Order: sequence, then structure tokens, then C-alpha cells
Amino acid sequence: MGNSFGTLFRISTWGESHGGGIGVVIDGCPPGLPLKAEDIQVDLERRRPGQSKITTPRKEDDQVEILSGVFEGVTLGTPIAMLVRNEDARPQAYDEMKEKFRPSHADFTYQEKFGIRNHEGGGRSSARETIGRVAAGAIAKKILTSTGIEIRAYVERVHEIEAPEMNKFPTLEEVDASPVRCPHPETAEKMVDHILAQKKAGDSVGGLIRCRVQGIPTGLGVPVFDRLEADLAKAMLSLPATKGVEVGSGFAGTLLKGSEHNDAFEKRDEQIRTKTNRSGGVQGGISNGEELYFRIAFKPTATVLQPQDTVNIDGDEAELFGRGRHDPCVLPRAVPIVEAMTALVLIDHRMRQAAQCETFSF
Amino acid sequence: MGNSFGTLFRISTWGESHGGGIGVVIDGCPPGLPLKAEDIQVDLERRRPGQSKITTPRKEDDQVEILSGVFEGVTLGTPIAMLVRNEDARPQAYDEMKEKFRPSHADFTYQEKFGIRNHEGGGRSSARETIGRVAAGAIAKKILTSTGIEIRAYVERVHEIEAPEMNKFPTLEEVDASPVRCPHPETAEKMVDHILAQKKAGDSVGGLIRCRVQGIPTGLGVPVFDRLEADLAKAMLSLPATKGVEVGSGFAGTLLKGSEHNDAFEKRDEQIRTKTNRSGGVQGGISNGEELYFRIAFKPTATVLQPQDTVNIDGDEAELFGRGRHDPCVLPRAVPIVEAMTALVLIDHRMRQAAQCETFSF
Amino acid sequence: MGNSFGTLFRISTWGESHGGGIGVVIDGCPPGLPLKAEDIQVDLERRRPGQSKITTPRKEDDQVEILSGVFEGVTLGTPIAMLVRNEDARPQAYDEMKEKFRPSHADFTYQEKFGIRNHEGGGRSSARETIGRVAAGAIAKKILTSTGIEIRAYVERVHEIEAPEMNKFPTLEEVDASPVRCPHPETAEKMVDHILAQKKAGDSVGGLIRCRVQGIPTGLGVPVFDRLEADLAKAMLSLPATKGVEVGSGFAGTLLKGSEHNDAFEKRDEQIRTKTNRSGGVQGGISNGEELYFRIAFKPTATVLQPQDTVNIDGDEAELFGRGRHDPCVLPRAVPIVEAMTALVLIDHRMRQAAQCETFSF
Amino acid sequence: MGNSFGTLFRISTWGESHGGGIGVVIDGCPPGLPLKAEDIQVDLERRRPGQSKITTPRKEDDQVEILSGVFEGVTLGTPIAMLVRNEDARPQAYDEMKEKFRPSHADFTYQEKFGIRNHEGGGRSSARETIGRVAAGAIAKKILTSTGIEIRAYVERVHEIEAPEMNKFPTLEEVDASPVRCPHPETAEKMVDHILAQKKAGDSVGGLIRCRVQGIPTGLGVPVFDRLEADLAKAMLSLPATKGVEVGSGFAGTLLKGSEHNDAFEKRDEQIRTKTNRSGGVQGGISNGEELYFRIAFKPTATVLQPQDTVNIDGDEAELFGRGRHDPCVLPRAVPIVEAMTALVLIDHRMRQAAQCETFSF
Repeated sequence: MGNSFGTLFRISTWGESHGGGIGVVIDGCPPGLPLKAEDIQVDLERRRPGQSKITTPRKEDDQVEILSGVFEGVTLGTPIAMLVRNEDARPQAYDEMKEKFRPSHADFTYQEKFGIRNHEGGGRSSARETIGRVAAGAIAKKILTSTGIEIRAYVERVHEIEAPEMNKFPTLEEVDASPVRCPHPETAEKMVDHILAQKKAGDSVGGLIRCRVQGIPTGLGVPVFDRLEADLAKAMLSLPATKGVEVGSGFAGTLLKGSEHNDAFEKRDEQIRTKTNRSGGVQGGISNGEELYFRIAFKPTATVLQPQDTVNIDGDEAELFGRGRHDPCVLPRAVPIVEAMTALVLIDHRMRQAAQCETFSF
Repeated sequence: MGNSFGTLFRISTWGESHGGGIGVVIDGCPPGLPLKAEDIQVDLERRRPGQSKITTPRKEDDQVEILSGVFEGVTLGTPIAMLVRNEDARPQAYDEMKEKFRPSHADFTYQEKFGIRNHEGGGRSSARETIGRVAAGAIAKKILTSTGIEIRAYVERVHEIEAPEMNKFPTLEEVDASPVRCPHPETAEKMVDHILAQKKAGDSVGGLIRCRVQGIPTGLGVPVFDRLEADLAKAMLSLPATKGVEVGSGFAGTLLKGSEHNDAFEKRDEQIRTKTNRSGGVQGGISNGEELYFRIAFKPTATVLQPQDTVNIDGDEAELFGRGRHDPCVLPRAVPIVEAMTALVLIDHRMRQAAQCETFSF
Repeated sequence: MGNSFGTLFRISTWGESHGGGIGVVIDGCPPGLPLKAEDIQVDLERRRPGQSKITTPRKEDDQVEILSGVFEGVTLGTPIAMLVRNEDARPQAYDEMKEKFRPSHADFTYQEKFGIRNHEGGGRSSARETIGRVAAGAIAKKILTSTGIEIRAYVERVHEIEAPEMNKFPTLEEVDASPVRCPHPETAEKMVDHILAQKKAGDSVGGLIRCRVQGIPTGLGVPVFDRLEADLAKAMLSLPATKGVEVGSGFAGTLLKGSEHNDAFEKRDEQIRTKTNRSGGVQGGISNGEELYFRIAFKPTATVLQPQDTVNIDGDEAELFGRGRHDPCVLPRAVPIVEAMTALVLIDHRMRQAAQCETFSF
Repeated sequence: MGNSFGTLFRISTWGESHGGGIGVVIDGCPPGLPLKAEDIQVDLERRRPGQSKITTPRKEDDQVEILSGVFEGVTLGTPIAMLVRNEDARPQAYDEMKEKFRPSHADFTYQEKFGIRNHEGGGRSSARETIGRVAAGAIAKKILTSTGIEIRAYVERVHEIEAPEMNKFPTLEEVDASPVRCPHPETAEKMVDHILAQKKAGDSVGGLIRCRVQGIPTGLGVPVFDRLEADLAKAMLSLPATKGVEVGSGFAGTLLKGSEHNDAFEKRDEQIRTKTNRSGGVQGGISNGEELYFRIAFKPTATVLQPQDTVNIDGDEAELFGRGRHDPCVLPRAVPIVEAMTALVLIDHRMRQAAQCETFSF
């Protein structure tokens, strides 16, 4: 309860940032898919700490091992278990965390909920938990790609530095050209500089990630609670440090009138299409074949290297002196995580659509 | 699949806007709760069309019948089924909808997904579906209230007219004092005028609803996928016409630095509290005892009484002449729906917390 | 939780034997299926009390109303809600049940679990609850029939009177030729006489129902927990009065050695088939294309018209004088219920198979 | 889908008999439980092959590693992942299995379902899969024991050799005194001899396991689909080689009349108790506080060391010459597996009961 996601392509993640390791089990993966550890490693590299000068210097190799569900390089249809061992633990760095609650982290709430917590590095609330999501998402993406669905997330704004709107669907290479994963080169450069400045000042910043998906067939999404955007919203707000999500026209769309906001239909290339796409590819909770797009708000990293007011576990007021090696901005590494969660939502709805609407003909 | 919500306090809604009726089944309701139809009717009245001059003139009585799960005025712990009959059907008003897809409605996507649709009034995608949610939410609210949890939603912005920030937790009476359900009287008045102007012009507007919750104990929410904010986000984006949700500091919070955004801890009234509440009452997906708050973006109503470009079911371009009796702004009637969904999320997490963390002692 | 069954073709039943009514919601029904109330009424008639001299004389019309999910005679793919109103309540007949716990009924355990119970006629534990299952099963059967799957249950033993083994797959007409629903005419006659004798003596009897299914494709059933026989076992033991289930060779098969029990493969009609079928159509939890068969043990009806020792709600010893109009043997009316539950299991697994193994090709 | 079990104390197992290993993830384990690998290893030893002269000589150490969810010897409330590496693979022994379907194994049905299978040792259908269940069950048992619930399974019949009925609840020591795990010494001796004789003859036998549980509180089990016996039936028939299950009086109970079968109530030790216990501790799907008991039928091991008729993967008839090191009788090693599944059902229902019926008071 709480550590699984999806109904038909269902993943269960486990693991704390410090301990034996981090992993995921996928139940429901279609059989017959060619799959190697390298297929997964590619996305793990994009998520890995220490990959560039703007991420944490913490070094984690994050080599994935496929423990089950694959035989002679092909998926069996049985559960796929994957494991990434933990390493580079420096428990001494966490002595302060044992005694004091870090502001805007999960230390206090985990202690309140469970009456116990792994105080080393955030335990289960650590972003390291997302390794399992990325590993599972890599498989989902591979399957979706084979059907013509392409998912692309990128950093659109860091703090106050925002990229101009891009009509073109950026390539993976364009996104990854800069370590900040913004496909607009000039903006990317400014973002990198800004992040480095925060790092130097012991501060942190947040921003926005945009995710775009092309090639989605019509019909994905299930009324009424499992609308496509509802499941995407849950997927996104289940990520650490997220504070909001908007689909299509989003919050800005509330400033338009109905006559300005509606997406008129037209016939284009012999297909029913919308002239505009304020809906963001979803209408009534179901994909309409247009580009799906949404944005996620990430708050600034809670770890700052500055003294902060807090209390200790006895409830007495104390001061916390930030330490540790953390990302001054989580967004660049969150890009593959957003893609992974998007892929997990889409493959699940693709399978649900097949089950209900494509199995029988009357 | 798709029409149920919750894990332990689980609801299943059913019904189209035209047909036998609308209903809900609640599975998992605690036994022993005193319950009368009137407990539910109160919230249905707040959701009902035709309740004021700024809502649709469509008249629906929406009398709820409790069919099961209650015996001699007390819940049995067995499923509670509730039914609201449909009435006032004017199928002739829907002839145009049979032939043409209404822009930014679900006509086209339902047709694509299911190969068939109930073209009378939106069928399952109609906001009428939310009756079941409100009925179930009324029961959840009654239980939560008995534990000291109070949920209050209200309209914060209509189109460009926004209420000033309110520190005070408004009373239900303050919210319902104006038909627009904005507890700031001067703003409410402007909103009403603006909505009436849109109605006259055959246009529509959207806006923002804020929801606030007081009295939540610490510990609600389950890492990692079922974080409290993730489940709330799904709940909100499962509502018709929603385009975004933000928790706590939300999108604006991304413009702050970590040193500005963090909520320092302090000791207050012998309790561990945060000095500020940018987290919005949730940290690491778990409630921290502070006020929970979030905002939801509602797009302008898709039905406008103006000619619009569209296509017919054969894919040929056509013009739609809006008709029917619709709300020029859905927000006032959405307020009780937002409260209902919030209550459903909270009661479910309260029960999950009891099951995992309060059943055994070692 | 507890009142829903299935994952993709998911039903939720509700209702007590006395109160507003009994019903079911089906979520996940494929769209496009022609469906009328009469399709469902046929099976309800087979389940209905008062249908013959060997069932309870209680009269219930049990007319089903389809409240949603069907439009112009065709399923929409949205939830199908069905309602059967209660009638013929004689609450005065239940005064004794208010004060005393009936032996081997659910009065005591419901009271212990929920702290409250509907003492009129068994409430939720009444066999009347199965109306919802039969209604949903009728739709599942209609879909399965369209794919060539045929389900046939019949009474094989009543108390000590057992029908000889039948190689032939009996027709529905053969089963329903006798009110006892045993397709072997001479045995059926003896069963009827025996049941009437019990009725006269104020006693009751149980027995065995066999269920057989032909036309199942290979591949249904999901390892490891949702094996086809595991889901069937749960389905059967979720029925009132059941005490056991056995698949294929069952309990008798434990008296054979492996060399005697194994089903050798052969090539027959250009297909891989087994020479014998002790497996009962399932191997490793997955259908192998042979006939699926299993048997269910039903205990004798707990209501007997004889004085019995019991205690009252204060825990004091008392004597219960049986009353009311009950079936001296539940098996004849349980036949359509067994078929319904079987259909629900099979359609769910058919849809799961489509989702996982037929959606993508690599 | 299919590889998870339970709703609140939910386990997901993974792994094939040959490959990286076998494991399980538990989601929902209560926090604060003292837990060491040795707590789990004890039950794994009882399941382990090669533990006695009547089990397979195959040697597997089956050392469990706890990868997450435990911190400083105490459960965190986060997922507990456990891993047992595979070893002793002799793939050459499986060449024949690559080409030919073994009768009454899952080779054929896995191939049909998934279009692919791990032909080494049965893959996912191997009894080795149950390691994950036993590991998870060990934790569930530890929690249940702390509440006074004691679960005891034992072998009651092997082929035609049956132990006399035992009124006394046997101790673990009495059960494990013989390698066959029958607590009746004389019968146990005969069983061992019989199994050794089958082994010598290259044949195999099945039999019955009885499971008994004492100390269950009233109120566990949820009407109507998740009755306690329904969930137990599913749990048991999800085990490899099972063909039937009966609760309480079971199949034999169908030979009694209602007046003979009913369990009269009485006042005993100031509690409401039943004089007899044909119900088996469950009435209306809910525990009544009496001893819970049920029996499971295990077929004879499908692997026999004798030539058998079969077909090869091309569908051509062939002869299979049994090989490999297998148990001539699975029952002794199945005893801890039955206990594990029982524990998983009971803890889940205990938590569900707490959530619905003990969280709120009105």
C-alpha cells in the first residue's frame, strides 16, 4: 500500500538511500520484449548523481542487475525484479540528522507517522528511491517507443530563468546537450551559471519541467477517477519536491474565456484534429490524439548549506548547520524521472484500453 | 476500473446525466455512524443546479435515497448504496450533439475510446456524475468532523477577479453568504456581476478554488506513490474542467530560493510546529499537523452560446450553435465537490494509518 | 473492500435482504454489447425463491432495473448499475432473530465484527445478496458465450443421493428439466423426494454442485497468486453455505500415485491435448484448453424448523424455535450463482490475458 | 497483477527457479517490529530442499538477505525487500525440458500463455517461488504470535496412510519430530517408509495437510467476497500442486442434515461459544473465536522417474524420460508454506478490521 503504482503494468519500489540497496519489481510486463541491463542503464545514467558540475558531487555508480523475468534476453511475462546496490555511505555525515529535524524534509513527518525513521540520508524519502521508477520506466518507454509514442521532458524554468516557448518537439540530444537539460542553448547556459552561483552561496533553486508526448493514440484514459490527467497528476506529485502540476493551458487557461479557450475541431490530413491544443491532448480524461503536455513545479532543494532554525527529537529548539553533498537544483536529474512516470501511466492505460475496448467484438 | 476511488473507504460511482439515475456505492464505511438522508442532502443542495441566478436555470431536485448499509439510522459497516434519479430530460435539446462533436467536451474522445457514446447531455462525462462523489464525501466529512478535521473550500478567483489572501479560516456561513462562494464579500459581488455579464454574452469563465483543512493529525499520507498530495492531486484532476493543482507554495514557490522557502521548525504550545507553512501541511508526502491547503485551476465552461467550428461524426467540418442551459462558471457549484474529494482522500489515509501504524504494539 | 470482485471486469455488490434493495455495479464492461433487462432476468428467475415446490415458498419477483451504462440497448463501456427492489418483508417474523443468535448463521459474527447488525433476515449475509452476482454474471456469460465458452453447473449430490458420472456435457434444458437441477432424471427424482421429506421434517440437506466449462482458450490464469483455480476457489468459497472446493481430480486425486495421476500429452485433431484430464483443465494455474471442471460442497441450510440451543444477545442461554420460509436445500438455486461466479472469473482473466499478452507485438 | 497477495499487508513475489534469485517485497508491514534475518531463516529451513532423506537431495542453502525496510534491527514501516540467491543450477539437466512438455507440469500452459518460457526447472511455476511467501509469512507469523494467534499445519494423510484425528493442538516440536511433519509418531513412521518406497520406484504420492489456528479474535473476515474462508481458499489453491480445500466440516459435512450440522451456542467461561465446531471457526465469512481449521489436497508430484507419453514443442508425439532430483512427496516441505499463506491472510484481515471497525468511535 503506497509503494506500488499502476494497475496492469504495476511496479513496486523498495529501498532506502542507505541500506542494502534500491529496487523495483514490475508485475504485468508483456512477454517477448528484448531486454538487456543496458536498456535500463541508459536512463539511470541520466538520473545518476555526480554526472555533471551542477549536480551533487556524490558518486554513485548505480549499476542495475536484472534478477528475474528475463530469459535469454527476452521478457518472460513474469515479474521483473531489478536491484541497484547502495554504496558510498558516509553515516558519520548524518550524525546531525539523527538528532535534529531538517526543515522542509521528511524527517519529522516520518518520525511522527512511523515512530521510527532511518536517519541516514532521508531513508525512503530520499530521491534515491526514484531509481526503481526510472528502471521500470525505461522498460515502459521501450515498449511505448515500439508503438510510436515518444516522451520528452525538459527543464523550462530554473528559478526566474525561463526558456522561450518551443513549438518544435526537441530531440533527446537537444535536451541532453546541456547538463541542465534545457533544449534552448542560451537559456541553458544562463541556468547553469545561476545554479553554480547558488551552489557557491550554499543556497538552492527550483523551477519547472515540461513534459511533452507525441504519437499517443486516441482513447487512452478511463473516466471518471482514472482520467489520464488525474493519473499523471498523481504520478508527478508522487515525486519528491513537487508542488504542482498543470495540464494543457493549466493555470494560465483560467484567465481566458470559454470562447477563447475552446479547441475548435477541424479536418486535417483526413483526421479529426483540433485547431488549437489548450486541452493539452486530453479531453474528458481521454487522449484525443493531439500532443499531450503538462508542467510540474519543483520547489527549491530543502538542503541548504546555511544555519537554519529547527528542533531536535526532544522537541527543543536547535540550529541546523547544513552539510552533505546535495544538488543545488534537482530539476536536471528529475527530467528522466518525469519521463519514467509518464511512461508508466501511458503503458498502463494502453493495456487497460486493450483489455476493455479491444478484446471482444460484438 | 476507473470508476472507483480510495482503498479502504472506497467509492464506486455510476450513472450518466440522462438515463435511470446517478449513484454511488461506498465500501468500507465504519459501522455505528448515525446517518440520515438529510446529512447527505445538505451537500447535494450546494452542488445542485438552479440554486442561484449565476448557475444554470436547469432544475434538478436531486433527492438522494439511501438503499442499503444503514439500519435504524446507523451505518452497518456494509456497502452504502445511494441513488439520485434523473429528471428534467429534454432529449430534443440534444439533437445537435448527436451529429456534431462539441469543442473541448468529451464527445469526440468518448466516441473514439468506446466506439459509442450517450450523446444526451454528456453522458458519463457530465458534471452530474459528481453527485455520487458529493454524497459519499458528505459521509466522509461527517466522520472526519467527529475527529476535529474541518475542510473548507471556496472560490478565490473568477477569471481575472481575485480575492485578497485570507489568513482567517472562513466559516461555512461566510463562504455560502454569496452565491459565488467567495468568502470576501466585495470580491464576491464583483464575481457575481462578472459571471452574469458572461452569461448575457453567451460566454463563460473559469478560475481558482482554494481548499483548506484544519485539524489534521500528523502522519497521514503514505510514501512513496500514495503521498497525501499525490492522492489529492489525482482527486482534484479527476474532476471535470480541472487543468491544474498546486499544494502549499505551489508554482509561485519555484520563484523562491531554498533559504527563503524552507519552513523552519519551532516549539509552539509545547508542540513541534513550523514557523511558516510553504509546505502546505505536507512534508515528504505526510501531514505535519499544519494547515493543509491547495488550489485547483478550473477552465472556463466549454459550453458557450456562440457558433463554433467543429466536425460532425462523419468527420466533415460543421458549425455548432451552442444551446442548452449551462453554468457560465462552474466554480460555485464545484466548491462542495472539491470538499467531498478532499474528505474522501483524508478518511482513506486516516484508516490506512490506523491499519498500519496503530493496530499492533511491539 | 470486500464487496468487490474482479480486477478488470469488476463488480461491486450492495444491499441487505431487508431494506431498499439489492444491486450491483459493473465497472469495466466492454462497450458495444447488446443488452436488455431480459438478458439478466433469465438468470434471476433461475435464482429466484418460490420457483418450485422444493424451494422456499417466499415470493420475490426480483425484477431487475438497469440504471446506467446502457444506451439504446447497447453497453457504453461505463459502469452498469442494476437494482432489484426488496419486497415481501415480514419484519414481525424476525422478532426472535433480534434477541437470539441463530446457530451456524452469521448473526453472532456480524454482531461481533460490526457491533451492530440488521437482524431482519440475515442482512448482508443473506443469500439474497447473490442477486447482484447473478445479474453481473449474466452479462459476463453473454460475452463469453459470444467467444464460444459455455458454462454449465448442476447438482451432483444431495445429501447421500449422488448422480452417476456423466461424460456428456449436459444442456441447459437437461439441467433445468428437474427443479433440483440434476441432469440425471432418475437421480433428480430421488433428490426431489428427499428434499421434500426434509422439508416436511423441518430439517435440511446440503450436497455437491459440479461446474463444467467448455471452449476455454489456453492461456487464462495468471501465476502465481491469481491462478485460475485460486480465483475460482475464492469465488466459490465466497458463496454462502460453501465449505469446500476441488478442481479436477480434487481430494480423490490424492489417492493416486504420480504415475497414475499425470495427464499424458498427445496430438489430437492437430492440437496438443491431454489423454486424460485429471488436471481439470488447469495446469500451473493456467488453462490448457481441456474441459475445466470443479466441485463445490454446500453445507445443509442452517435454518431448521426445530428447537435449537443458542444464546441471546446478552449472552444468556436460550432456545430458538426455527421459523420463517427457507429452502430445505440451497443447491438448486445455487446452480446459476455458481455459473455466475465462474463467468466473472473467466471474463476477468480473458481481459487480463488480452492486456498483457495480446496488446503489443515485438 | 497476479504476483501480489493481500491488501494492507501486501506481498509481491518474483523470481524463477533458475536465474538471479527469488524474492519478495512486503508493503504495509507495521513499523517497530524487531526483525532479524534469522527470524526468517528458521522457516526457510523448514521449506528447504535436502533437509531430510524423504525430500529431494537437491542442495540449496537459501540464505535470505533483508535488503530494505529494517533499520537497526527494527522494521521501518517501509517496504521490506528480501532476496535469496539461486545456486546449484545444472542447466544440462534441463535439455530434455527444452524440447518436450512434461505431463501435468506448467511447461505447456506457460508456453501457450506467454509464447515463451524459462525451460530450466519450471521457471516461475517451480515450488521454489514459494520462498518469497515463506519469508513474508515468517514476518506475519511473528506479528500474529505477539497477539496470541498460533498457526499449526501438519501432514494428515500421505497417499492412503492417514493419521487418526487429533483433538490436541500439536506443538511445533511434535510436528517437526518426524521429517514427514505428521505429529502422530506411528503414522509418521509409516508415511516415511511409504515415501521412501515411492522414491525407490521412481513414483510419487500426494495427500492432505491440515492447518489449525488458535487464538483468533472474533470479527476477522469481510463480507461478502473477502470472507475469511474465501481468502484462505485462494491462498491455498495458489500453491503449486493443490487440487482442493475444505473448511470445517468440508465435504464430509454435506452428508449431515442441518439438525446434525449446526453448531449450537452456549455460554462457556463467560463467553459465547459453540458446543461443536463444524463451522471451522468461521460463520458468514467472519471468525467466531473458535479454532479455525481447514484441509488442503495436494496431488502427487508430477515429476516421476518413469517414461511418459508427451509431445515436443513442435507438437509431435514423444516420450519423456523423467530425470532430475525431485521430492517424491511435496507435503512435508509444504507445511511451512501453508502456515505462511495462512498467516498472510490473517494479518491482512486483522489490519482491515482495525481500519474499518476500530479507528473511529461515534
